[in-house]
Amino acid sequence: MQDGTLLAAVDLGSNSFRLEIGRLDLGHIDRVEYLKETVRQGNGLDDARNLTTEAMERGWDCLARFAERLAGFGPRQVRAVATQTLREARNRDVFLLRARTILGFPIDVIPGREEARLIYQGVARLLPQSDEKRLVVDIGGRSTELILGRQYRAEVMESYRVGSVAWSMRYFPEGQFTPEAFHGAAIAAQAILDEALSAYAPGSWDVAYGSSGTIGAVGDVLAATGHDPGVVTRDGLLWLEAQLLQARSADRVRLPGLKEDRRPVIGGGLSVLRAVFDLLGIDTLHTAQGALRHGVLYDLLDREHTDTDVRTATVARLATRFEADPAQADRVARVACALFRQLGAGTPAEELQRLERKLAWAAQLHEIGALISHSDAHKHGAYILENADAPGFAQSELHRLSQLVLGHRGKLRKLDLDFADTTMVRQLACLRIAVILCHARRDPDVAGLRLAGTGQSLSLTLPRGWTTQWPQSAHLLREEVLAWQKTPWTLALA
Amino acid sequence: MQDGTLLAAVDLGSNSFRLEIGRLDLGHIDRVEYLKETVRQGNGLDDARNLTTEAMERGWDCLARFAERLAGFGPRQVRAVATQTLREARNRDVFLLRARTILGFPIDVIPGREEARLIYQGVARLLPQSDEKRLVVDIGGRSTELILGRQYRAEVMESYRVGSVAWSMRYFPEGQFTPEAFHGAAIAAQAILDEALSAYAPGSWDVAYGSSGTIGAVGDVLAATGHDPGVVTRDGLLWLEAQLLQARSADRVRLPGLKEDRRPVIGGGLSVLRAVFDLLGIDTLHTAQGALRHGVLYDLLDREHTDTDVRTATVARLATRFEADPAQADRVARVACALFRQLGAGTPAEELQRLERKLAWAAQLHEIGALISHSDAHKHGAYILENADAPGFAQSELHRLSQLVLGHRGKLRKLDLDFADTTMVRQLACLRIAVILCHARRDPDVAGLRLAGTGQSLSLTLPRGWTTQWPQSAHLLREEVLAWQKTPWTLALA
Repeated sequence: MQDGTLLAAVDLGSNSFRLEIGRLDLGHIDRVEYLKETVRQGNGLDDARNLTTEAMERGWDCLARFAERLAGFGPRQVRAVATQTLREARNRDVFLLRARTILGFPIDVIPGREEARLIYQGVARLLPQSDEKRLVVDIGGRSTELILGRQYRAEVMESYRVGSVAWSMRYFPEGQFTPEAFHGAAIAAQAILDEALSAYAPGSWDVAYGSSGTIGAVGDVLAATGHDPGVVTRDGLLWLEAQLLQARSADRVRLPGLKEDRRPVIGGGLSVLRAVFDLLGIDTLHTAQGALRHGVLYDLLDREHTDTDVRTATVARLATRFEADPAQADRVARVACALFRQLGAGTPAEELQRLERKLAWAAQLHEIGALISHSDAHKHGAYILENADAPGFAQSELHRLSQLVLGHRGKLRKLDLDFADTTMVRQLACLRIAVILCHARRDPDVAGLRLAGTGQSLSLTLPRGWTTQWPQSAHLLREEVLAWQKTPWTLALA
Repeated sequence: MQDGTLLAAVDLGSNSFRLEIGRLDLGHIDRVEYLKETVRQGNGLDDARNLTTEAMERGWDCLARFAERLAGFGPRQVRAVATQTLREARNRDVFLLRARTILGFPIDVIPGREEARLIYQGVARLLPQSDEKRLVVDIGGRSTELILGRQYRAEVMESYRVGSVAWSMRYFPEGQFTPEAFHGAAIAAQAILDEALSAYAPGSWDVAYGSSGTIGAVGDVLAATGHDPGVVTRDGLLWLEAQLLQARSADRVRLPGLKEDRRPVIGGGLSVLRAVFDLLGIDTLHTAQGALRHGVLYDLLDREHTDTDVRTATVARLATRFEADPAQADRVARVACALFRQLGAGTPAEELQRLERKLAWAAQLHEIGALISHSDAHKHGAYILENADAPGFAQSELHRLSQLVLGHRGKLRKLDLDFADTTMVRQLACLRIAVILCHARRDPDVAGLRLAGTGQSLSLTLPRGWTTQWPQSAHLLREEVLAWQKTPWTLALA
């Protein structure tokens, strides 16, 4: 990516939607523009965990404004991510379908731990280089992320279901600040955060940073009221809690530095923050400049190259953890990508490369399920991918990957597959044919083999004498032809 | 177990049901009686993979006769196992429910690979000691097992869905022996067995043995027709195939040594056997005396002691493979078993020990799902146990274990739990309380803690001051009390 390229990150958070636009400059991303709207979708979940129509409309309206600003951006320049509220909402697809159309770009619902990783990236990239062990805390509207890391590397990360919007709704429903409400909210938050104690205990980090949302707001109030700027201290927290108790309710709070849109969620946010301080023995939390959206921007940059794409490392780690045979994985990846390239004449080279990378990931992971059992290993592999922690991946990406793993052999009908999605079907076909060609776990004889495709037809040309020389492969390929006959696609052998 | 004790194994196979009774003598089991009936349930599966009523009745009638012979046997002296037909039958529970009542003993449907392991045990125990690398082949009615092993240890094992009954039905439906039918049957068998090639290739074993069913029958015919006794050779197979082709149909075959009940399935069996010979490059297969039922008998003996119980090793291996923290696993196991012992006053010591062993297994495995992800680790752990290869375990045992792992935390309603099953519910409660007490991953303070139970009530007595000293544990225990309120059981804190 050239210097001067504009990159944009959209963060569909539970409290706010944010748009950050930056310009690439020698590996750094300088701010060009930052928009934030307090959409507060996180309090628009009804009892059945469905987003209300109003909450959806607030979101769509905001995205329409962001879309105007993003006119002219290409798909590789923009990434939009959604977090806890959309992770939870049962009817999220209703919201997302229209949201994507309005925004004009895909929106990835990211898993909690992926959110944590990106927050750490955002914080770390905007801090000076240092070898300190960092604890990063981000209290969002419906989730709180805790991360331990060093340099640019997040090492331990977790997302917990406590947040400023959720806790304000549950423990301060009328906005009344009482000692009992603060106590109840803190106990409940500690009960959920409790399991963090073993991983994030005092001593496991040198410096604590707080990112975005609640911590930024608390930092602003403390700085505006004469406390040390740039930090949130235990004393500052106690002082702020006393102020809120004195005001007795959210609408009567008058504090310099407290923005109007923060007022309704400060009670819940503060009680969660106190729970974090108490549990992890924090005395001073440094307010960080970087946040989720910065992590998303730098991740967009990293994805440009296979070796900096964190997903490459994730795939390698999963393959190792689940003891997939690397020789077979590489062999299948090579053959599958070669077949896919034969189909791809006409596709721009850069796009083809991107699609090949994803196909290679599926090949590298196609046997991971065998650690559970060789029988139905493809199903176990798909289960693992649907459920594993996979830094760098959005849920929809993981789902595609898991469908490729599930479909690498056996019947095609079991798949959650859109047969109009030519790219996906072609990736699947190439993977399956590669698995067949490599069935003997040796490098197959592919000289003269040629895969061609038009529309929903694929045709594999075998050189003269090939079927006689490789009768078992030929048998399996004939069965493969039959498998595709049960779909709208056809595979022919010539 | 004392010398002279009688042990019995019942093998509900796809072609035959068998009863083997042996007497324990200095670690060996000498035959007392052997009954075999050709029930041929394996051809009683209809198109929807349901056992027909006739096939069920043939099975029940046979088991009634076996039950008469088993009168007076205690539960630790008998084990009944069922294989491929009952693995496949969708309505197997209908058959099994009545079958268990008729037989008077539990019937375990065992996974294919467990069948393979037991076959190897049976073959190995009846062979002279030797360090040779052994290949063991067993062609059953609906499955074929291949095992590599040394001494008493099965090292590589697999069960394939090809067998004499299934192949006879599919490729010789009218009992007509034609070259085309043999060719088609062999090709189809090879396609399924093909993946065995890499693991069981020539060179990976020194001597090949064949157990039971088809191989025994073929061996009998060859011996009775002047071929070398005790072995099945490639030449012998070709000769036999020529004889069948010459006879042209199953009902016209006249061969010395061929039993009447083997005639209808000899075509399918022979074609599978040829496929195995061709694929694995076998020239000579030694007919073994030992079979599945002998493996079951010796396994019954091994289960008497924790350190010879193969399930102990399986649990340890799964815990290692899925990287469960051994310190935490042992801690939870210790606490859970101590609680369970407190409940168990009145239960005979031997029985209590057996139940504790199973509880300890659940404790050792309760965190294995975390290799997939810490979120919902209990669900992933249950998934692994429902699907993993677990030598020594019947499917129903694995299911209980997986339910304990699934239920070790969180809601109780998600479980497939029979609340009238006091043992299971008590095991579950002890595991959950132990997990709570060990929540900080330290040895908990359990001095003075006392769990008592009557009927469907449990009561946990905490010593004075305990809840003040351990407020988080006390909080979690109070939540545990609430969790049980949604079930027919109650847990009280005193």
